[in-house]
Amino acid sequence: MEAKRSLLAILTILSFLSISTAAGTRKIRARKPCKSMVFYFHDIIYNGMNARNATSAIVGSPQWGNRTILAGQNHFGDLVVFDDPITLDNNLHSNPVGRAQGFYIYDKKDIFTAWLGFSFVFNSTRHKGSINFAGADPLMNKTRDISVIGGTGDFFMARGVATLMTDAFEGEVYFRLRTDIKLYECW
Amino acid sequence: MEAKRSLLAILTILSFLSISTAAGTRKIRARKPCKSMVFYFHDIIYNGMNARNATSAIVGSPQWGNRTILAGQNHFGDLVVFDDPITLDNNLHSNPVGRAQGFYIYDKKDIFTAWLGFSFVFNSTRHKGSINFAGADPLMNKTRDISVIGGTGDFFMARGVATLMTDAFEGEVYFRLRTDIKLYECW
Amino acid sequence: MEAKRSLLAILTILSFLSISTAAGTRKIRARKPCKSMVFYFHDIIYNGMNARNATSAIVGSPQWGNRTILAGQNHFGDLVVFDDPITLDNNLHSNPVGRAQGFYIYDKKDIFTAWLGFSFVFNSTRHKGSINFAGADPLMNKTRDISVIGGTGDFFMARGVATLMTDAFEGEVYFRLRTDIKLYECW
Repeated sequence: MEAKRSLLAILTILSFLSISTAAGTRKIRARKPCKSMVFYFHDIIYNGMNARNATSAIVGSPQWGNRTILAGQNHFGDLVVFDDPITLDNNLHSNPVGRAQGFYIYDKKDIFTAWLGFSFVFNSTRHKGSINFAGADPLMNKTRDISVIGGTGDFFMARGVATLMTDAFEGEVYFRLRTDIKLYECW
Repeated sequence: MEAKRSLLAILTILSFLSISTAAGTRKIRARKPCKSMVFYFHDIIYNGMNARNATSAIVGSPQWGNRTILAGQNHFGDLVVFDDPITLDNNLHSNPVGRAQGFYIYDKKDIFTAWLGFSFVFNSTRHKGSINFAGADPLMNKTRDISVIGGTGDFFMARGVATLMTDAFEGEVYFRLRTDIKLYECW
Repeated sequence: MEAKRSLLAILTILSFLSISTAAGTRKIRARKPCKSMVFYFHDIIYNGMNARNATSAIVGSPQWGNRTILAGQNHFGDLVVFDDPITLDNNLHSNPVGRAQGFYIYDKKDIFTAWLGFSFVFNSTRHKGSINFAGADPLMNKTRDISVIGGTGDFFMARGVATLMTDAFEGEVYFRLRTDIKLYECW
């Protein structure tokens, strides 16, 4: 009798397990990151006079803009390409641990916002591989979330969310972004 | 005896479960969305005369193009940045529920096709967060599928497919896209 | 007694199963692809004289560049839009099985690197649908990994890694990329 009751209990558990398996990707998943990292990257925009130090350049602009001064109307339409050093702390002169490479494009006339497509590229003893990002950056907000859409090498198949914070800026030439990366899919 | 037979049945089920777990991400998964949504967005391209109403602008063009008229050869090479209102119905003047922000780039000489990278950005009582999209848009087809590559806030870690339909267009200045979003990964 | 021991064994297995389910996406997953494919694509950059054959064009450039010659400083800042034929072998004149459509943007001053956003678009009896890619391409390396960030049609919800190899190049006008696609999430 006892064995039968136990069997019943197990079958109940099993049927529950089957259901949760069938529900597959529809179930609510734990939002606990499998990996967390913090980096800073540093962007120095070419302004016609800083060719040696610049790490980025305007390469597209609206009709009313040009390629050495960010356009009026909150830079709407400016496309900027970058190859920025990544550091572990907020010091531009710290030893870079990788490069942030890609583009941003200012996309709103009435406030500063941008759309970002870029990668963190690592090639050191610490990290090898890349993390790929995409998303909207409403840069007047203190924190902005974008997506980690993939990764390679040490970050093979990664997915997650990166929180951007403007850590500093100087005029329209230099800014520094703190990037808190939280991966929720690790392989 | 009966208990033993039941045990055998359970063990059989268990071994089946184990196998399907081992196969991991290689198994065929149910294609039932965990969330479905329909939105419209409205794009008004800057043509040199509509600065007040325009929601997008040409910011890159091939050598034979300029930034106030979409280029010949099916606009091949034109890069357009946008910040378009999102509405729940097909009326441009309905109350916007968010903004579609990003870019498209016409990429074919013999017919109209584009490549899209953009986000839906929501900040209302209804939705907070963003949905990120990327993909090819062969815009002469009645329906075109692009990828939902990630999300934040209410759409944390979302993945799925969005089906685009041109709902209306007027000359080369205005078009309206219906967007049926189906998420297959929800967290 | 025997039934009880068996029950205990089953409960042990069950509790193990529950644990591995709870760990969810945090566990190490098998890195065996669910689908592997090899393709080549062919890029002919517009140089002012090859309008008939060109499959791509420079549409953005830094202040020091133009749209018919790739810019100095390792083409830093050049944005190129493409619609390239995809073939199964390394012959430009083989029957195309699809189109590679999107953009690349040279993003480094001291060596050749690019950032890519593009799709493989198929519409044949063999394949229907699209595969979407994004990532950094340090093109002086023999092999470079980018991410498969999504897919539609036959490649519904695909994720994976694509390895790029420069198979040939001629001056600054033609190059051919071998693309080894490995999908690790198939639906």
